Amino acid sequence: MKLSTIYQSVQEGLDKVEEQLRLLTLSQDDTFPELSEMLSYILTGGKVIRPTLTLLVGKFYNYSLSRLLPMATASELMHIATLVHDDAIDQASVRRGRPTVNQVWGTDKAVILGDYLFAKAGEFAAATGNLRAIKLFAQTLWTISRSELDQAFNAFNLKQTFDQYLQRITGKTASLFAMATESGAVLSQAPEEIVQILKGYGHNLGIAFQIVDDILDFIGTEEEMGKPIGSDLAHGTLTLPSFKLLQLYPEDNPVRRLFCNEDRQKNLKLAIELVRNSGVIEECYQVASDYSTRACQNLKLLPDGPSRQALVALADYVVERKK
Amino acid sequence: MKLSTIYQSVQEGLDKVEEQLRLLTLSQDDTFPELSEMLSYILTGGKVIRPTLTLLVGKFYNYSLSRLLPMATASELMHIATLVHDDAIDQASVRRGRPTVNQVWGTDKAVILGDYLFAKAGEFAAATGNLRAIKLFAQTLWTISRSELDQAFNAFNLKQTFDQYLQRITGKTASLFAMATESGAVLSQAPEEIVQILKGYGHNLGIAFQIVDDILDFIGTEEEMGKPIGSDLAHGTLTLPSFKLLQLYPEDNPVRRLFCNEDRQKNLKLAIELVRNSGVIEECYQVASDYSTRACQNLKLLPDGPSRQALVALADYVVERKK
Repeated sequence: MKLSTIYQSVQEGLDKVEEQLRLLTLSQDDTFPELSEMLSYILTGGKVIRPTLTLLVGKFYNYSLSRLLPMATASELMHIATLVHDDAIDQASVRRGRPTVNQVWGTDKAVILGDYLFAKAGEFAAATGNLRAIKLFAQTLWTISRSELDQAFNAFNLKQTFDQYLQRITGKTASLFAMATESGAVLSQAPEEIVQILKGYGHNLGIAFQIVDDILDFIGTEEEMGKPIGSDLAHGTLTLPSFKLLQLYPEDNPVRRLFCNEDRQKNLKLAIELVRNSGVIEECYQVASDYSTRACQNLKLLPDGPSRQALVALADYVVERKK
Repeated sequence: MKLSTIYQSVQEGLDKVEEQLRLLTLSQDDTFPELSEMLSYILTGGKVIRPTLTLLVGKFYNYSLSRLLPMATASELMHIATLVHDDAIDQASVRRGRPTVNQVWGTDKAVILGDYLFAKAGEFAAATGNLRAIKLFAQTLWTISRSELDQAFNAFNLKQTFDQYLQRITGKTASLFAMATESGAVLSQAPEEIVQILKGYGHNLGIAFQIVDDILDFIGTEEEMGKPIGSDLAHGTLTLPSFKLLQLYPEDNPVRRLFCNEDRQKNLKLAIELVRNSGVIEECYQVASDYSTRACQNLKLLPDGPSRQALVALADYVVERKK
């Protein structure tokens, strides 16, 4: 199913999220046009999956756009801020088919813009007036940072376990998906049992999403992905396809060689080829698919309707997507 | 007056702030000793002026350490996070007489650690349970970022006004001082009129503090300051002493030459010498002193006692300090 179809039942809310983001680019006074320019550059063109989750989840109980809208906006802003910092740290030059913020304005301004976006996200979270949602927001941000730090400390480290990988993607990706669904449930006054089910959905969906991201970094095209292929390996980040490859060829393989600093360019290319031409990708998709299934497992405890159907369709989408 | 004397009446609270920071370094599970190490490295040894302000202000009305402590801790964490990001952006190598975080662990990890600290700060702010304090926290963070961005965009720009400088130091320094005092007043349930007076105190104190910082970057010693002298000019940041020098020698001077990219090393040295051997420093101290006086102007509307005396002493301290 196409994203636009999945988004249909909350399109009105999503339009308002995008309006909030647009207002943010305009709210700068005339004395600082550079900031407006940076914000306009970065705040549009995303998949807006996280705000969609908050809004969809919010439909099950007491739907209140005035409570949900700031949180949905906060989650998108937090997501964009992490991308800006990730690119600055990785010195990435292309994202979404365009030069990154650090490429256009320099690493220093990218770091500060990310801080600005985190703060604006925090202001939106505070605007919910809901202390639980606000605390969840702050905890999610430090959880993401902690996992990013773990990833940085383990760059080019071959002695990592699958559990560490799982913990890392839970922290850096699934935590934000889980925040999006948990906060949507809390802000629509869902009973605690349902809050936990929806949080679990976000958690499992996020893991599936990240595994597919990691797969696409091997099998996607630069054109579709809007960024270079193989960037995880190039930065020394072990993801699921690499783990599977290391298991398949435990003695010697291009990932091992790359991590041991042997002709990185050549071994990066070889690793991508080997992953593409082995059963590794299929195995990885199986893992992603399992998480996607697990995400939907408890949804049947929720009332059937457009929202539940959209959540199920989204779980299919994150596995099937090509970018 | 020495800082320890000024801090006396709130020493108990300050000890608890430092305990919170220490707990933060310990709270990491055994699986991530590197994070604990980074936190231990960065979380101690500061002047803790901002938490002191929150605690002192909190003494005037309904003093509640359980409400004030998280906010005091949040303000110190926010301050440290901004230092970590500032150093990473400036590629500074020394701070407080020791290698910076980016120097020890690299720019990438410094940026992520800063994010982590911002998030932890946010969690502490949320722990106050006070929505006004939480919103103020988020607004202060984006105000700081906005000013840092303004500074970055105006590096090596000679066409700046004194008003721009004032606006910038208000944003990047005074806003956090004002947050510390305003939140202390709000959390101790001071009447709104008093909240505004104490916010004004923090604002003016912060401006005085930053002007003296900018002076010390010219006249301090590397040993006392724990960081290189002349770093503002080296990064193309116009501060008050430079403004005064540009006014004194409008046609030609080493600041102008430095900004026009003429032998930067030589002109940096000449600029520092010229500032030191002119009336510029005295004039700058006069401006700082005026703000310090202005900070205390309305304090007489508050009950006299150890807290008020400490606020007055602190206003003297920020001008007289040598580091």
